[in-house]
Amino acid sequence: MDRIVIKKIEENITFESPPVLVCGLPGIGNVARLAVDYIVEKLKMSKIYDIYSTHLPAQVFVNSNGTAFLPKNSVYMKNISKKKSMIIFTGDFQGNTPEGQYEIGETILNIARENGVKTVYTLGGYGIGKLVENPRILGAVTNLKIRKKLESAGVIFSENEPGGGIIGSAGVIMGLAGEFYGMDAACIMGETSGYFTDPKAALAIIRTLSTLVGFRINLKEMEERSKNIEQLTEKMQGEMQERSQKDDLGYFV
Amino acid sequence: MDRIVIKKIEENITFESPPVLVCGLPGIGNVARLAVDYIVEKLKMSKIYDIYSTHLPAQVFVNSNGTAFLPKNSVYMKNISKKKSMIIFTGDFQGNTPEGQYEIGETILNIARENGVKTVYTLGGYGIGKLVENPRILGAVTNLKIRKKLESAGVIFSENEPGGGIIGSAGVIMGLAGEFYGMDAACIMGETSGYFTDPKAALAIIRTLSTLVGFRINLKEMEERSKNIEQLTEKMQGEMQERSQKDDLGYFV
Amino acid sequence: MDRIVIKKIEENITFESPPVLVCGLPGIGNVARLAVDYIVEKLKMSKIYDIYSTHLPAQVFVNSNGTAFLPKNSVYMKNISKKKSMIIFTGDFQGNTPEGQYEIGETILNIARENGVKTVYTLGGYGIGKLVENPRILGAVTNLKIRKKLESAGVIFSENEPGGGIIGSAGVIMGLAGEFYGMDAACIMGETSGYFTDPKAALAIIRTLSTLVGFRINLKEMEERSKNIEQLTEKMQGEMQERSQKDDLGYFV
Amino acid sequence: MDRIVIKKIEENITFESPPVLVCGLPGIGNVARLAVDYIVEKLKMSKIYDIYSTHLPAQVFVNSNGTAFLPKNSVYMKNISKKKSMIIFTGDFQGNTPEGQYEIGETILNIARENGVKTVYTLGGYGIGKLVENPRILGAVTNLKIRKKLESAGVIFSENEPGGGIIGSAGVIMGLAGEFYGMDAACIMGETSGYFTDPKAALAIIRTLSTLVGFRINLKEMEERSKNIEQLTEKMQGEMQERSQKDDLGYFV
Repeated sequence: MDRIVIKKIEENITFESPPVLVCGLPGIGNVARLAVDYIVEKLKMSKIYDIYSTHLPAQVFVNSNGTAFLPKNSVYMKNISKKKSMIIFTGDFQGNTPEGQYEIGETILNIARENGVKTVYTLGGYGIGKLVENPRILGAVTNLKIRKKLESAGVIFSENEPGGGIIGSAGVIMGLAGEFYGMDAACIMGETSGYFTDPKAALAIIRTLSTLVGFRINLKEMEERSKNIEQLTEKMQGEMQERSQKDDLGYFV
Repeated sequence: MDRIVIKKIEENITFESPPVLVCGLPGIGNVARLAVDYIVEKLKMSKIYDIYSTHLPAQVFVNSNGTAFLPKNSVYMKNISKKKSMIIFTGDFQGNTPEGQYEIGETILNIARENGVKTVYTLGGYGIGKLVENPRILGAVTNLKIRKKLESAGVIFSENEPGGGIIGSAGVIMGLAGEFYGMDAACIMGETSGYFTDPKAALAIIRTLSTLVGFRINLKEMEERSKNIEQLTEKMQGEMQERSQKDDLGYFV
Repeated sequence: MDRIVIKKIEENITFESPPVLVCGLPGIGNVARLAVDYIVEKLKMSKIYDIYSTHLPAQVFVNSNGTAFLPKNSVYMKNISKKKSMIIFTGDFQGNTPEGQYEIGETILNIARENGVKTVYTLGGYGIGKLVENPRILGAVTNLKIRKKLESAGVIFSENEPGGGIIGSAGVIMGLAGEFYGMDAACIMGETSGYFTDPKAALAIIRTLSTLVGFRINLKEMEERSKNIEQLTEKMQGEMQERSQKDDLGYFV
Repeated sequence: MDRIVIKKIEENITFESPPVLVCGLPGIGNVARLAVDYIVEKLKMSKIYDIYSTHLPAQVFVNSNGTAFLPKNSVYMKNISKKKSMIIFTGDFQGNTPEGQYEIGETILNIARENGVKTVYTLGGYGIGKLVENPRILGAVTNLKIRKKLESAGVIFSENEPGGGIIGSAGVIMGLAGEFYGMDAACIMGETSGYFTDPKAALAIIRTLSTLVGFRINLKEMEERSKNIEQLTEKMQGEMQERSQKDDLGYFV
């Protein structure tokens, strides 16, 4: 097997205009993948490629009906309107190694280039290690032109965030797109505790993305999932506060 | 050395009908390997290939007479009847890395395809972390047609088992067979504690497989090994119960 | 992507004489990188190549204005005078693996050979695990001819230092240069505690290098950074002494 | 750089008869390397190849005069008499990975085959985790013919030793020699505690090897080193005994 195998799912794809590429793979708070899975489902996007790789874990997943499938990355497309098309890149895992992440990144960017992509948004979670009430959307960009576009969509650029850079596929794909493909690329990160799968941050990401790309999407289900998490969060905060008040009263050392 | 080296052991192999492929490598409870080693021995199968690889550990094993040999994977065959043939794939180790497991998986599937294989059974242990009285045989499949066949042989499909998917060669070979070789593939897992080498689970696997593939095999020895383990298991359970009763009586904290 | 991608930054480079190569990558006390970054800046050297690689971590760094960039290694040049030219090799990371460090080492040495390099200085920190008042500059060489040159510039050769050899790129590039490129190579190590980024050791390295290569450089800023560290060091030593005196008085066990 | 680079040191080598190959790389108790280094020195063997590899650690070693060199493996030769020739393979490290150990193993075996080698001895330490008074020499072989030869030289074949097989280069080279090169191969292991560099086990190995290969060698220096270790061993044993006697008297719990 080649290290990367691209399987065409749909033969005749026509983009009515040069698409934007949106990348969302599993990562911090699973924010990116939650967001793109929701978009793919709600916009009924068409799957055009499956990408298998020896850079992905050696296993199968098993569905509830007992059918099993290899881990893969997948590419979806949709002509949103005559003037707007979108490609979404998602998958079960990021590459196992740095080399794998670079190679898979190049694979999706080659597909993007063939289809005329000029703009790339990679999605991610920005883990801050504590509960988040109103997740900010933070940005990083490959040039200042696209920064303006992001700012006008409410994306925040904060001087020291993210401090350590952007690790993994969201970083690599963005970096390669800017450095080697001449594309405008940005990473859009939803603030999250990082403690659990975070639909609230995913919801914020979807809202930002719908403005940036220009699609309409029914947010109801994600809003509900987000509310459930919010209630859970409040409950946890309440309990923690209670506990710390008790501590202050000296009941516990 | 190429990363994978195939050594032909027997020159003139004729399959009287398209064989099924059965794969059993070391893993949880050593269930899969115990099962296939027993079948190979009792059916006096012929070894047709040895597969050496830099994906396997760098060492030799030493026999009791002092002779040493490199770790390898091996392929055996048998024409069970005019209408039934079987290939068994087994070996000393799974590949060291995900990449190695994918590459070795492809190697055996190429051999299978050349010989007309249409159906693949990979074997495995399903570790549940506690002693098992009557090991169930759980299944996962690449399509629903083969699921029916397994169910009629008593294989159980349980909605959330195995929860985390099937890790390693049993998963990869099954997944590749379905996705890239157009074969019907299934993974057959014997329930086991996972604490020790488990002939009881292996026995259950062999029984299921003899129904599925259609071979007769003298089970006496494996039944004895299984009984020995059963007695050990009962003894352990007895001791554990006793100990916990003592605890209840307050003799020990 | 190839495992190593060389991007030409400046098209028409002319070396007025065969340059020396100076290599400074991140490592112990960040001494080497501090030194070369300072030299590149103060001598206003021209960047001639960026080197990207799947051997480097899969991430981007983010600038304070939100622009992001892939990690890379870079090559700078300067004609110091009619008779002296210099190439500097630096970067964000050393290769992730031994194989990566060898391959990146060869890449820079191939560039060096094409441009007529005959002499190579790799820089490093020599971590001694305690505070250093006057950092010595220790040397290692590929032949005794270059040892003399280093000694006359004040570099110390101490029989058992560095005891365990020189690990990483500074070692590999030096070794490859001598063994496979017929170059005179030396590693110049600034003594450092290894506890923090150490401008004092970097300053000592720069002074030695300016003698060896023959360039003049304004050291003021690095001297200031070095003084700050010195004050910090003295304060820490003072506190530690105080604490140990108290211990002697028996106040604490 | 290729993953393995062979550098010819001496141009015109003539073996007066087909040589035996002896392999001794660093490992348990450093027994193998101690033994071959001593033989190379005392027999004044000629170095014929240096082997560099990206499978070896990325570093240099530094001599006491400050000269540095890349880690490597080396091949030495000697015509012991008209009818006896020997090749010795040694080096600074074993390959970093299983793949590296296989590839380096093949490299030396290719050199061996080109020069007519029919018999291979790989050397190793057999670590037993306690002090050894009279180290046995244990053997493992690729066929029973060579087992006889070893037995007549005093090598012991013990049914369950080494229990877990022979890990690393000594195993791999022996296994490859037998399986792929049609050579008679044996591994000769000197019993050692494994706690320290063990000249006593190395001495025993050299004695066995001189019988097997048929060379005479001045053992005086190695005997002295061995005696020193013996005295150290006895002292340690004495101290340990004393301590345990005190324990029996109840002075200490």
